[in-house]
Amino acid sequence: MLTKRTAISLEEAQNKLLNVHLPIGIEEIPIKNADHRVVAEDIKSPFDYPTFRRSGYDGYAIRLEDDHDYPKEFKVVANIPAGATYDKPLQENEAARIMTGAFVPDGAGKVIMLEQTEYISDKKVKIITNSRHDNISPIGDEFTKDQIIIPKNTELNAGGISIMAAVGKNTVNVYKKPKVALITTGSELLQPNESIQNGKIFNSNGPLLEHLIEDAGGIVTESIQLKDDLELLQKNLLRLEKNNDIIITDGGVSVGDFDFSATTALNSDNLLFNKLKMRPGSVNTAFINNDTLYFALSGNPGACFTGFYFFVEPVLRRFVHQPSRLIKVKGILDQPYNKTNNFDRILRGQYSIRNNNYYVHLNGSDKSGSLGNLQSSTCLFKIPNSKEPIKTNSQVDVWLLP
Amino acid sequence: MLTKRTAISLEEAQNKLLNVHLPIGIEEIPIKNADHRVVAEDIKSPFDYPTFRRSGYDGYAIRLEDDHDYPKEFKVVANIPAGATYDKPLQENEAARIMTGAFVPDGAGKVIMLEQTEYISDKKVKIITNSRHDNISPIGDEFTKDQIIIPKNTELNAGGISIMAAVGKNTVNVYKKPKVALITTGSELLQPNESIQNGKIFNSNGPLLEHLIEDAGGIVTESIQLKDDLELLQKNLLRLEKNNDIIITDGGVSVGDFDFSATTALNSDNLLFNKLKMRPGSVNTAFINNDTLYFALSGNPGACFTGFYFFVEPVLRRFVHQPSRLIKVKGILDQPYNKTNNFDRILRGQYSIRNNNYYVHLNGSDKSGSLGNLQSSTCLFKIPNSKEPIKTNSQVDVWLLP
Repeated sequence: MLTKRTAISLEEAQNKLLNVHLPIGIEEIPIKNADHRVVAEDIKSPFDYPTFRRSGYDGYAIRLEDDHDYPKEFKVVANIPAGATYDKPLQENEAARIMTGAFVPDGAGKVIMLEQTEYISDKKVKIITNSRHDNISPIGDEFTKDQIIIPKNTELNAGGISIMAAVGKNTVNVYKKPKVALITTGSELLQPNESIQNGKIFNSNGPLLEHLIEDAGGIVTESIQLKDDLELLQKNLLRLEKNNDIIITDGGVSVGDFDFSATTALNSDNLLFNKLKMRPGSVNTAFINNDTLYFALSGNPGACFTGFYFFVEPVLRRFVHQPSRLIKVKGILDQPYNKTNNFDRILRGQYSIRNNNYYVHLNGSDKSGSLGNLQSSTCLFKIPNSKEPIKTNSQVDVWLLP
Repeated sequence: MLTKRTAISLEEAQNKLLNVHLPIGIEEIPIKNADHRVVAEDIKSPFDYPTFRRSGYDGYAIRLEDDHDYPKEFKVVANIPAGATYDKPLQENEAARIMTGAFVPDGAGKVIMLEQTEYISDKKVKIITNSRHDNISPIGDEFTKDQIIIPKNTELNAGGISIMAAVGKNTVNVYKKPKVALITTGSELLQPNESIQNGKIFNSNGPLLEHLIEDAGGIVTESIQLKDDLELLQKNLLRLEKNNDIIITDGGVSVGDFDFSATTALNSDNLLFNKLKMRPGSVNTAFINNDTLYFALSGNPGACFTGFYFFVEPVLRRFVHQPSRLIKVKGILDQPYNKTNNFDRILRGQYSIRNNNYYVHLNGSDKSGSLGNLQSSTCLFKIPNSKEPIKTNSQVDVWLLP
C-alpha cells in the first residue's frame, strides 16, 4: 500500500473537478417547497399584472372630469369592497366607495383617500380636498405578459415565492439537489449509544459531513458507518453507486494497511487526485468510478472539513448552477505563524474587518486531528510554504466560510 | 372606523417590542436535528478528550529511549489497527505497527511515520530517519473534562454538531422555535388553483410571510386565508391564541370598512402601535391580547415585507437569544431620490461595496403595493422626510437583508 503518489496543487485539484461532467437534473416542485431552490427556467408572467385597475387606498373613486372645485358633494352609487367588481360606468359627480386593492370601475380616473372626505350618508359624501395622485395602479403596472419576473438560475427566497404565487404559479422547475451517499469508515468508531473505551472514538465526521452536505444543498440519501473491511466497503459502494450522484467516504485514505478507500481510488476508472501540496488534507482524494464521482476525505476532522469546502462544496453548488459560497479574499495576518512548512498550510481561522481589510488569526488549534474549532471558525486561510516564519501583517489568501 | 391614530417612530416601535416579555422555552432534541438551532446551556466535555493517547499517523510506535542511531532495526511485537488496544509495555528496540488514530501502547513515546521506515518482515522493521515530532495526541489534548466546548447561546452549525458527537452527546437543550400562526385576510384573495378574475388576486403575502417566518427561525403552525368577516376572524384568533406564541394577520389593518384586524387591535388588551411615522407600512400594527403577541401587517406586499423585517424578525430571533439578522449600516445614495415626503420612506434596494462604503440604489419600484422587487432586493434604506429632493451621495441608513 505504500504507493508513490503525485502531489498537485489546490488550484490544479479544483480545476480537475471543474472539468468533471455532472449529471444535472431538473424537477418540477410545488412553489411552497421551493425556498432556497434554484430555478431552472426563466419565469415569466402569464398575464399583465395587476390584471385590473386597482385602488391604492380606501376612499372614493370619481371621474377625472369631476375632480375640481372642492369641497363638493358626490352621490355615492356603489360600494366596492376588495374582491368585488362594479360594471356600470360612473356618471357626473357620482362616486363609488372603494377599498384598498379593489376594482376601480370604468370611467373612474382617481381615488380620493377616505381621510380627505367627510361621510354624509351611505348615499352622499363630501370630498374636502384634492389629491395629488390618482391612487390607481393601472393594468400591467407591475408586470406585462411574458415579462421575465425571475431569471433562470436564481436562488429563490421568500420574495421570489411570493412573486410566483402572485401570478398564479403553483409549481416551478428547479435543479435537482445532488444525491450524496456518505460512508464513514474505521474500526475505531463507536455507535452513538455505546460507552467510550480505549482505542475507540465516537464518529464525529459522519455528523459533520451530513450537515455540511445539507447546508451546501445536497441530499444525504444514506449515511453509514463501516468497520475497516475492503470487501464490506466495496459491496456498499457498488450498491450506493446506483442511486447517488456523489459518494463520499471518510477515513482510510492514507497509506496504512487498512486504508481501503485509498485502494478503491487507485483501482478506479479515473483517479483525479490522491495527493495535494497542502496540509492538512494532503491525502484528500477524488476519483470517478462507474460514472460516479467519489470523494475520499481524510478521517482527520480538520482535514475533512477543509477538504469538504475546497472540493465537495463547489461541486454540490455546481449541480444547481451556483458558485461556491466560499468567498476568496486577500487578508492580513493578525499574528505571526512561526512553524515552517514544506507544504502550504490551510488553517481554520476567524476574521474581523478593520479599515476595509480582512484581518485573520488562527482559531485554536492548527492540528489536522483537532475538531474543537469547527463550530467557531469563520474562515480558512493559507500560510504559504516557507523556510522562514510568517510575520504579522503578511498578506494571505483567505476563504470566508458561509 | 376612521379613528385618529398616534404615529410613532420606527425606533419607538422597535423599543416597545423589545420590552415585550416573550415566553422563551427550552427543549431537548437529538443532535442530528440541531443544525442552526441555538444551544440553551453551556455544553461541557464529559471527559478528557482524546480519552487515550492517539497516534497521529500510520507508522511504528517506539520508546523514546530507543529513539537514536538511525537507521536501525526494531522488532515488531504488535500490530495495532485503529480501534484496537495493546496492553503490554514496549521493551528495548521493540516497535508496534500502529495506524492513524490508534491507541499508543504504554511506554511508547513516539510514532515514526511509515514513510520513514523500511519493511523487512511482519516481525522486523528498519527505521531510516528520525522524526521531529512525537506524533502522539496526549489524553485531554483537545478538551479537558468539564471544559466548555460550545457556549450557551451559540447557533449550532455542522462543526458544533460534530463536536457534540465526538464527546458522545446524543441530545442537546436548545431554545424552542417560536410558534407562529398566520392569517391572510381579504375577500379579494383567490385560492391557488382558481382562475384569475376581475377584482381578485392570488394570495402572495401568505407564501411570503410563511417563508420569511421559517427563514427567521419560526415554525408556521398554521397558515389560513380568510374572507373579510370580523366574526370569522375573531373565532380563528381565539382558537389560534391557545397554541401559538405569535399571531400574524396580514391585510385589513387600514381605515376601511372591512379592516377587521385594525378593529381587533383597537379592542386588544395592550395596543403597542398602530401608526408609524414611515412609509410604506405606516399602518403596520402590534398589540398584545390574552398574553399573545400579535402583528397586524399591511396587505401591501412592500409594506408587509418591510414590516416583517423591522418588527417581526427581531422578535422571532429574540425567542432564541439571537440578534436580528438585519445589519444596520451607513450607506451612500448612488442616485438622487426626487419625491419629497412628510414621512421617512423605507425603500427596497440593492447595495454594492466600493472603497469600504455601502452604495445603495432603489431596486425597481418604490410603491407599497409592488412585489416585483422582493426576490432581488438586498437591503432596505431610509429616505428621510424632507421638503427637498435627496441628492446623489447623501448618507442614508441602510439595513442589509439576511
